[in-house]
Amino acid sequence: MFTNNLTSLLKIDCPIIQAPMAGGITTSKLVAAVSVNGALGMIGAGYMSPIQLQELIRGVRELTSNNFGVNLFVPSKFEIIENEIEMANSMLNQYREELGIIGERITPPSVEDTFHSYEELIQVVIEEKVPICSFTFGVPSKEEMKQFKQHNVTTIGTATTIEEAILIEKLGMDAVVVQGSEAGGHRGNFISNHEEGLIGLMSLIPQVADNVNIPVIAAGGIMDGRGIRAALRLGAKAVQMGTAFLTCEESGAHPLHKEVIIHSKVGDTTLTRTFSGKWARGIKNKFILEMEEYEDMLPSFPVQNSLTQSIRKAAASQNLKDYMSLWAGQCASLARIETVEELIQRVMDEEMK
Amino acid sequence: MFTNNLTSLLKIDCPIIQAPMAGGITTSKLVAAVSVNGALGMIGAGYMSPIQLQELIRGVRELTSNNFGVNLFVPSKFEIIENEIEMANSMLNQYREELGIIGERITPPSVEDTFHSYEELIQVVIEEKVPICSFTFGVPSKEEMKQFKQHNVTTIGTATTIEEAILIEKLGMDAVVVQGSEAGGHRGNFISNHEEGLIGLMSLIPQVADNVNIPVIAAGGIMDGRGIRAALRLGAKAVQMGTAFLTCEESGAHPLHKEVIIHSKVGDTTLTRTFSGKWARGIKNKFILEMEEYEDMLPSFPVQNSLTQSIRKAAASQNLKDYMSLWAGQCASLARIETVEELIQRVMDEEMK
Repeated sequence: MFTNNLTSLLKIDCPIIQAPMAGGITTSKLVAAVSVNGALGMIGAGYMSPIQLQELIRGVRELTSNNFGVNLFVPSKFEIIENEIEMANSMLNQYREELGIIGERITPPSVEDTFHSYEELIQVVIEEKVPICSFTFGVPSKEEMKQFKQHNVTTIGTATTIEEAILIEKLGMDAVVVQGSEAGGHRGNFISNHEEGLIGLMSLIPQVADNVNIPVIAAGGIMDGRGIRAALRLGAKAVQMGTAFLTCEESGAHPLHKEVIIHSKVGDTTLTRTFSGKWARGIKNKFILEMEEYEDMLPSFPVQNSLTQSIRKAAASQNLKDYMSLWAGQCASLARIETVEELIQRVMDEEMK
Repeated sequence: MFTNNLTSLLKIDCPIIQAPMAGGITTSKLVAAVSVNGALGMIGAGYMSPIQLQELIRGVRELTSNNFGVNLFVPSKFEIIENEIEMANSMLNQYREELGIIGERITPPSVEDTFHSYEELIQVVIEEKVPICSFTFGVPSKEEMKQFKQHNVTTIGTATTIEEAILIEKLGMDAVVVQGSEAGGHRGNFISNHEEGLIGLMSLIPQVADNVNIPVIAAGGIMDGRGIRAALRLGAKAVQMGTAFLTCEESGAHPLHKEVIIHSKVGDTTLTRTFSGKWARGIKNKFILEMEEYEDMLPSFPVQNSLTQSIRKAAASQNLKDYMSLWAGQCASLARIETVEELIQRVMDEEMK
C-alpha cells in the first residue's frame, strides 16, 4: 500500500487515477474494476445525459463500495455560425456518403441546452453522493464550488499551465491534474491558448508543484511503473492514466480502437481539431490527414463535434478505423490488452522496483 | 560518485552532459568548468570555423585534462531560392532599419562551403584528439564513422523519435541523446518531420530505451535533481542540460538572455523558425510574434539564419531583447544564475535525496 496526503484524501491504495475518458469508454465494469483494485475509477460524463450518468453511477455502486469519481466538461459559450457549418458540412458530406448516412439530419447543440445539461449533471453528482468530481475545459463557478463543499464532494481541476493550476487552487479545489502535451484525447487548456498549453509533463510537474500547495496529479503518456515513479519524483502525488486503461479488457472502447493502439508506434499520434472543434491527440488516420488543411476553418467545440458524430458512429459500427476518433497519448505503443487487475499489479510492481 | 556504463564510457562522475549550445555560449571557461566538476562539457561547434574550434579546444585543454566533447551540425543540401530571400529581406528590412544596419550586405551561405566546413571541423576533432563527438540535425556517413572509430572518438547521435534512435544505433554510434519536445534551441529531427518529432520526454525516454541497446541520454526541460532522477527512472543513463548551464556565470550567453530566462514564466517559450529557418524553442519576443504569420514562407536553414544574423548581432550589442534569439526550454523558469560548481552540486544533492 502506498500512502500520501492525496491517496488518503481519495481513499485509494495506490497513486493511480483512471482518466475519465468520455464517449462510452468508462463503463461501470471499468470504473468499478479500477476502484476494486485500489486505484480511483472515474466516470467520463462529458457527453452523458443526466439519466445516463445516474444509471452509470448506480451501476458502479452495484459492483463496489469503494470510492470513485465523475468528470464533467465545463461548458463555455459558443456561437453557431451558419457559414462555417455549411462549409464543414460540404467537406463532411463525402464521408457521410461513403458511410451511407448522407441523408441524416444534424442539429447543432444549443448553448442553452449545453449549460442546462451541465447543471443537471452537477445535481446528479450531488444527489447520488458521488465522493469525487473532476472538471475539464474550465472550472466550476464560486456558487457551484460552495455546493460541492456543502455536500463534501472532493473537487479536482485540470490544468495545462501554471496559471490554470493557480486559479484552480484559488477556487478552493482539492487537487489539480496537470495535463502534459503527451496526453491523449482533448486538451484541457481553458485560460492559455492551445500552443501555450502544450507543455511537456516533465517540465509541467515541477513548475506547477513549486507554485501550488494542493496535490498535483500528473497526466500524459504515463503507461507503466517507470512513468509513475518519474512523475512522483518530479513532484506529483499521483498519476492519471488514460490510454493504459483504455485498452484494458473492461474498457468500453471499440475493439478496433484498442487494436490500433497496441499496434501503434511512437509518432503515430497527432493533435487535431477535425473531430470535435477542440484540439485533441489521437492516432493519425485518413479523416485527420485529409481534413488537416481545413482545420482552421472548422466550427468550434461542441458544434464540430455534433457535425462529425454520425460519421464516428457509423465508422465504429462498420469497423472502419479511417473515420473513428482513435484518441491516444504519446506512449500508446506501450499499451497492452490485459485486465485492470493485471495492469495495476504490473505497474505497481514496476514502481516498487 | 555515480557510475553506470555511460558515465564509465564518458569518464564522468555524475550523469550530466552540458548541452552543446551553439553561438558563443560554450566558452572554454564553461566547458572546462563543467568537466572539472565531474560532468561532461561540450563545445557547440555548429557555427564555428575550423580555426575557432581548434582554438576553443586548446583553450579548454589549458583549463582541464578531464574529458570533454564537441558537437557538430550535420549539413543537409539546401536550395537558394531568390524569390524567398527577396520576400524575407523585404520583411526583415524594417528591423534592419530600426537597428541602423540597413545597408549591410548579406551573402547567403553556399551548399559547397557548408559541407566543406563540416568536413574540416571533423578533421579538427580528429587531429586535436577530442575524445567525444556528438551530432545534431543528422548523422555522419559510414566513412566518417569509420574514421571516428579508427581514432577512438566516442560518438553520440541526437534523436527525436524511435526511428531516428534506431538509425543512430545501427550506424554504430555509442550513445543517443533523445530530445523531448520541451527542449530549448533547435529541434534535432532529421528523419521525422517537425510535428512527428515533438514527443514529450516522459514518453520518449521509455519508448526509445525499450527499442535500442545503446545508452540513452535525456534532453529537454531538465533543470534539477527531480528531472535527473525522473529521467534515470524512465530509462535514461544520463541527462543533457542546456538552459540550466546557459544561465551559469561561466556561460558566454548574453547577460540579457540570462536575465530574460531567469525571469520567465511557464508558457513563455514557443517554437519558431523565424530566426534560422529551422524550428527552435525560445522565449517569445517581438520579432517572433511579428514574423509568425510569414513563418511558412521563409527560406530554410541555414539561409534564413544568414539573413537574420546581422539583426541578432546588432540587437545583442544594443541590448535589445526584442530581436535576439532567446533560446530556452520549457523549464526555463527554474533557471538560476550561479556557478557551474554550484549548479552541479545542487542538482546532484537533490538527485540523491
